[in-house]
Amino acid sequence: MRKIDVRIIGGSAAGIEAAIIAQQQYPSKKVIVVRREEKTLVPCGIPYIMGTLGSAEEDVIPTALLGDVELIVDEVTSINREAKSITTTGGKTIGYDRLVLATGSRPTVPPIPGADLENVFTIRKEIDYLQKLKEALKQAKDVVIVGGGFIGAEFADECRKMGVNVTIIELLDHCLMLNCDEDLCIRIEDKMREVGVQVNTMCRVKSIVGDKKVEHVECDKGLRFKAGVVILAIGVVPNTELAHDAGLKIGEQRGIWVDQYMITSDPNIFAIGDCAEKFCFFTGKPTATRLASVATREARIAGANLFQTRRRRNRGTIGVFGTMITDTAMGVAGLTERAAKNLGFDLVTGEAAAMDKHPGAMPGARELRVKLIFDRSSGKMIGGEACGGITAGEIANVMAQAIAGGMTADEIAAAQIGTHPALTASPLVYQIVNAAEEAVVKLR
Amino acid sequence: MRKIDVRIIGGSAAGIEAAIIAQQQYPSKKVIVVRREEKTLVPCGIPYIMGTLGSAEEDVIPTALLGDVELIVDEVTSINREAKSITTTGGKTIGYDRLVLATGSRPTVPPIPGADLENVFTIRKEIDYLQKLKEALKQAKDVVIVGGGFIGAEFADECRKMGVNVTIIELLDHCLMLNCDEDLCIRIEDKMREVGVQVNTMCRVKSIVGDKKVEHVECDKGLRFKAGVVILAIGVVPNTELAHDAGLKIGEQRGIWVDQYMITSDPNIFAIGDCAEKFCFFTGKPTATRLASVATREARIAGANLFQTRRRRNRGTIGVFGTMITDTAMGVAGLTERAAKNLGFDLVTGEAAAMDKHPGAMPGARELRVKLIFDRSSGKMIGGEACGGITAGEIANVMAQAIAGGMTADEIAAAQIGTHPALTASPLVYQIVNAAEEAVVKLR
Repeated sequence: MRKIDVRIIGGSAAGIEAAIIAQQQYPSKKVIVVRREEKTLVPCGIPYIMGTLGSAEEDVIPTALLGDVELIVDEVTSINREAKSITTTGGKTIGYDRLVLATGSRPTVPPIPGADLENVFTIRKEIDYLQKLKEALKQAKDVVIVGGGFIGAEFADECRKMGVNVTIIELLDHCLMLNCDEDLCIRIEDKMREVGVQVNTMCRVKSIVGDKKVEHVECDKGLRFKAGVVILAIGVVPNTELAHDAGLKIGEQRGIWVDQYMITSDPNIFAIGDCAEKFCFFTGKPTATRLASVATREARIAGANLFQTRRRRNRGTIGVFGTMITDTAMGVAGLTERAAKNLGFDLVTGEAAAMDKHPGAMPGARELRVKLIFDRSSGKMIGGEACGGITAGEIANVMAQAIAGGMTADEIAAAQIGTHPALTASPLVYQIVNAAEEAVVKLR
Repeated sequence: MRKIDVRIIGGSAAGIEAAIIAQQQYPSKKVIVVRREEKTLVPCGIPYIMGTLGSAEEDVIPTALLGDVELIVDEVTSINREAKSITTTGGKTIGYDRLVLATGSRPTVPPIPGADLENVFTIRKEIDYLQKLKEALKQAKDVVIVGGGFIGAEFADECRKMGVNVTIIELLDHCLMLNCDEDLCIRIEDKMREVGVQVNTMCRVKSIVGDKKVEHVECDKGLRFKAGVVILAIGVVPNTELAHDAGLKIGEQRGIWVDQYMITSDPNIFAIGDCAEKFCFFTGKPTATRLASVATREARIAGANLFQTRRRRNRGTIGVFGTMITDTAMGVAGLTERAAKNLGFDLVTGEAAAMDKHPGAMPGARELRVKLIFDRSSGKMIGGEACGGITAGEIANVMAQAIAGGMTADEIAAAQIGTHPALTASPLVYQIVNAAEEAVVKLR
């Protein structure tokens, strides 16, 4: 039996990142990635295949990133933990010293009548499938997107760029409600409506109707929407079958259970990315935050720990993400007010708005708003939102470092920041700092 | 004698910020700002008055920021520490409970023959003076800028936008050499040359020559440059006369000495901004880093400490700044390699480049490079540079928080970051994280 030092199952963002880090950190070890697909996609780029990027090929993760890591296209059918080996579809059995599970997730298909009709799509990370979706959109006059989370909103924005009439159906009070607080949700909904997207919140899909092909979507309250294409964007389910069959522990949020070092219930097997259980930075409890940047981070932790246990520790997922809907970018880090209240935090918030260049007469300057959320008892920052131009994405990363560093409002108010007329707000009104000052006053 | 709770002398960025914070933090206290100028300028916006902004009026700090704080336009001539009072030009004597010195700095005028000729300018923060400089530039065919620091480089870029032939004369090996390492200096010099700026480094000005008005600049090595206007941009001197005359301690770097709470040698007097001594975050030693964002930060520290000593502590200046020359933005935080070596650090660096959107086919994507510098003995990050598009400015702020938080290369490699196709690099290759990974390998 051939034996490999590190075998990684799955070759999307997490698997590739783990392979790169394993090779960098342990150059003498042989690393192999086995994945089902010849090519995998940059996951966050998928909505942009529809309009901005032109084609799915433009969104492929370059295999060149793998360097000397061997890539095998095959499917692993079972893991034999005692023998420390895996078996593939072809019947090959290969040993491993360390195994990394990066098997990802698949879209949730809701139990709605008609979900199996032609032209009803989920967001599979598969080139051919997405190309088929794109072709269907090109033929369609109307698309209904079920689920107004950030993937749904991004798809809506891209579809309307293709000239299709877009309707979003969201079950909750607002789109993006799991990621942002109400103000920001409404701002993004307004942006979508401005460009002609029909946004229907607090609306439940009852059935998808059509004769072979979808024709319309029936909702509660007697609402009915024409649909040449339906996109179901209501979340993902971790792929844990291999792990489950091998007797690995599965977590409360249905991911493969891991400890702080990304090690599963078997000390020789790691799990990372969408297939792995996530734990909240703030509470230590299981959470469902699945993002590509979380996956690659876990890959970096697992990759470094492979042969040197406990080198990098996962203190839990903060949850940092950005998006851009029409001309408005946002970046979010940590808990929303709503989530924090639900978790029992006593909150203090601070808000600030300022132009993102300075003085405001600088060409291209636009307003950027920041809200910061602090835990009253510890004084520490636990969440933040930025909304405005494209720097909101990196501002989320500034906020994330403040959260990770356990900074208090007073510390953030006196944070060391750099400013420049063409690049940032004025040092007099830098948004994160000013929002912290507002919180400081409320905290007294 | 009228007595005021908080009197702030100086009303540019530092003075205004201190007044705002004092008022926010201590709303029952009466705060007054006294400054010489009716209007003050956003200091970092000054170069952009020449081209981008159109006029100096566009660069005025809005007095509205002061809210209820009283603004008096007058000049303070002396401080009587025993009586806790100040006297103004008009002969008025007014008491204070706390005094904040924010008297700023003035341009260094080098002892060069001809520096007093007509059309030889420094960068004074005065509207009328800068408007005069702008008029002179409009008439001129050739401008010589003495000093290629970031102010000199920004002026060069703005002057060439006005259609003037621009020559920079820099004494050191490279422009921007006090703020960036050689690679980045050369990159910016190349950018300037591409748009027609003549860059002369390792060049010393011997004299400025002309009959009343400047005509040319004589340098060593027999070089001679035509000049209708000369701009001297070789640094600043803190305004410490008032403090000195009042017997306050002056520091090694010629600023008013302050402790970690921004308190001078008199417990009732604070000093902030360009007039105050700065201490290095890494060594605790006096440093000459004078930036608007450093000034406003000191103002926030002093403002909070006014009546509640030691609430905010200044752990020393990291030095974070950004600039944009032609189409290239950069952001820098902490020490350069050169500075760190001079201070005796044993260094390890890591570098990474990636597109600033992802995949690279996203419209407007461009390469952004990051270099991080670590201290081998502590493993902590002590410096970083980013260069590329406009997000480099906020990326410097991400780096600054990593430095302030004492993060090691391993910690940064597993940092929590958020990414999005339209806003940042891919999570697989996020530059700060990848640069840290390179350093991790070297640190082993």
